[in-house]
Amino acid sequence: MSEHPTKLIASMGARAREAALVMAAAPTASKAAALRAAATRIRAAETAILSANAEDVARARGAGLSDAMIDRLILNPDRLGGIATALDDVAGLPDPVGEIIDERERPNGLVLRRVRVPLGVIGIIYESRPNVTVDAGALALMAGNAAILRGGSEAVETNRALHTALAAGLADAGLPTDAVQLVPTTDRAAVGAMLTASGLIDIIVPRGGKGLVARVQAEARVPVLAHLDGINHLYIDAAADPEKAATLAVNAKMRRTGVCGATETLLIDRAYADPAPVLAALIDAGCALRGDVAAQAVDDRVTAATGEDWDTEYLDAICAVALVDGVEGAMAHIAVHGSHHTDAIVTEDEAVAERFLDTVDSAIVMWNASTQFADGGEFGLGAEIGISTGRLHARGPVALEGLTTYKWQVRGTGQTRP
Amino acid sequence: MSEHPTKLIASMGARAREAALVMAAAPTASKAAALRAAATRIRAAETAILSANAEDVARARGAGLSDAMIDRLILNPDRLGGIATALDDVAGLPDPVGEIIDERERPNGLVLRRVRVPLGVIGIIYESRPNVTVDAGALALMAGNAAILRGGSEAVETNRALHTALAAGLADAGLPTDAVQLVPTTDRAAVGAMLTASGLIDIIVPRGGKGLVARVQAEARVPVLAHLDGINHLYIDAAADPEKAATLAVNAKMRRTGVCGATETLLIDRAYADPAPVLAALIDAGCALRGDVAAQAVDDRVTAATGEDWDTEYLDAICAVALVDGVEGAMAHIAVHGSHHTDAIVTEDEAVAERFLDTVDSAIVMWNASTQFADGGEFGLGAEIGISTGRLHARGPVALEGLTTYKWQVRGTGQTRP
Repeated sequence: MSEHPTKLIASMGARAREAALVMAAAPTASKAAALRAAATRIRAAETAILSANAEDVARARGAGLSDAMIDRLILNPDRLGGIATALDDVAGLPDPVGEIIDERERPNGLVLRRVRVPLGVIGIIYESRPNVTVDAGALALMAGNAAILRGGSEAVETNRALHTALAAGLADAGLPTDAVQLVPTTDRAAVGAMLTASGLIDIIVPRGGKGLVARVQAEARVPVLAHLDGINHLYIDAAADPEKAATLAVNAKMRRTGVCGATETLLIDRAYADPAPVLAALIDAGCALRGDVAAQAVDDRVTAATGEDWDTEYLDAICAVALVDGVEGAMAHIAVHGSHHTDAIVTEDEAVAERFLDTVDSAIVMWNASTQFADGGEFGLGAEIGISTGRLHARGPVALEGLTTYKWQVRGTGQTRP
Repeated sequence: MSEHPTKLIASMGARAREAALVMAAAPTASKAAALRAAATRIRAAETAILSANAEDVARARGAGLSDAMIDRLILNPDRLGGIATALDDVAGLPDPVGEIIDERERPNGLVLRRVRVPLGVIGIIYESRPNVTVDAGALALMAGNAAILRGGSEAVETNRALHTALAAGLADAGLPTDAVQLVPTTDRAAVGAMLTASGLIDIIVPRGGKGLVARVQAEARVPVLAHLDGINHLYIDAAADPEKAATLAVNAKMRRTGVCGATETLLIDRAYADPAPVLAALIDAGCALRGDVAAQAVDDRVTAATGEDWDTEYLDAICAVALVDGVEGAMAHIAVHGSHHTDAIVTEDEAVAERFLDTVDSAIVMWNASTQFADGGEFGLGAEIGISTGRLHARGPVALEGLTTYKWQVRGTGQTRP
């Protein structure tokens, strides 16, 4: 706390940059060994970590934090075991570093290769969930980067204990502990210093609520990999299979309402024969529906939507419902109200589905599948550091590959340019 | 001029966004036809374009612009023919849009594809060279984007004439003319409005001198694809072939001194047997050498370098020269003073070369080749919109692929997430 945040981040950044050079050259086996060693360290330190966590939880209770926030903060042997297992999982992922993306030989004999390399120094800014310390740290390290972690003040003791295990894992594998550093102050100015640390931090990944992500996007001079909103749509086409329509609607909305892949607006083709069972299934599952006039006419339990409903990420058991004129009407609605996260169509008409998949400008577009599949694990990427709704660098679930860049290697035999 | 720049850019951006949707779905043949039609339009309008250019040149002369700036501005039948030919060349490039980057099937039967799609709306901010209007515009369009062009005030008449041809080419091919718009004011506030047009402009590409690029990077809220400096190094290793060493040094430095791929610092291994002929070859070619004490001892025509020389992009017939301790010394120098653009090694020792290619953290690393090859055309990319020294999204020469992103398409048969 005594150190000025800008100086603190500058010094951490310089050490991270040094460590990043070592990590970039580290063999896959060393990086994997570090993560596995960290998992072992976490399991061995279970008592210490849980007692640190208990301190945080007691402080949070004393400060009157909501039950939902305390639930995000709290660890138990089960959750801690999950954190350790996640480390082992990331250690087993294919290493993207060194992958040859493409290779070409020029007529003058120059051989050009694009080779995947780490991004460098990744700043991760997150809120109360302490598992992010390990999950995000592990992904950054496995992709050959150094990470600077700035967790929420509620989880300060837990984060310190988890960070100790992660750093010890690096040391066990002979890698520099500076490759994963935890910002040792909860001074908010440290976040500001990270966001403007161009040249020291290569990319910022915010993990948390809308407020955090919006602040980061507004203040950052360093590039940001972020998703702001998941205002996702499920469109039921005239040619939808009625059973799939109802099942997918319920799963897409209600499986877990608090995740960014949850559907927030249901669009139904005016030509769809029987919308009533879809709405009834959602209501029976405990979902409140807010609809336009046409949707209200389908089921009188649908209340009137206001203009705001079409632009709201509820993250709750509430769904907006509108009837639209076919796939073109659905796509027009999504173009205006969507957040470029995940949008899905339910139809048996392949041509209509392909039109939707080609045209809707979202990170993830789906045909006859639940929007709740929007997840790096479900995509087979092993894990994710977040789901990007930006258009640059990485889009949709971001895993190891999204934490790398490439360089061009040119091999010649003395060629000069005429 | 009468319209407020923020309102002007908002209105242009909204029209560009509409046009971008059409361009994203446009078949390759239509995009190529538009560029070829624009080339035809330019050839047909040669007299009008050259007379517009003559106006600009006369105004520039009246304003006392330097000969170098007027040379960048001036067109003649030959240069205009080159601009038209470049359009035909871009029209013949493979279309990246629709390319399937990868495909995987999940155990639950979901089929995931990453498909290349256009970035959206690209803002291009440039200075006096009017060819950028066509070159950069064409690349943006061929990759399925819309472009908002903001050229230098010196070239206002020329840019207008070239833009007319480009827009006419789009119309000839049945594509929306709003896909390429020229900012109709030289009010500098319009640049500020572009830099903050989040949601309207997806990426800004600055093309011009250091001052422009630095201003864009400092002010932009929209992501920027830019290179700031090309402080490139050529390292001559102990195991270098003497003939290659001298030839590559002269070509890398002197072929064209004003390009961003020109070498600015020559590093020579202290163990290299005979550095004198390399320095003599450069001096004979008209290059002034500024060296450390060891380099001055090799040839007394080498003047003393100051600390600044190691961090200077001369873009002139001047070269800094330092003797270093082997490849590790060279890489340490590059790590401190390089700008992550292009760095090369001359050696016959493959292990040393591979160490350099793996370790040096630059967009382009070369072995036994001239740094002057740092160019999209030379890389076989057909053209380039610039060379990115940033780490995100695209690195090194940026051509069509760098102006795209991807989306995830998920095809299912009714899968719900458990």
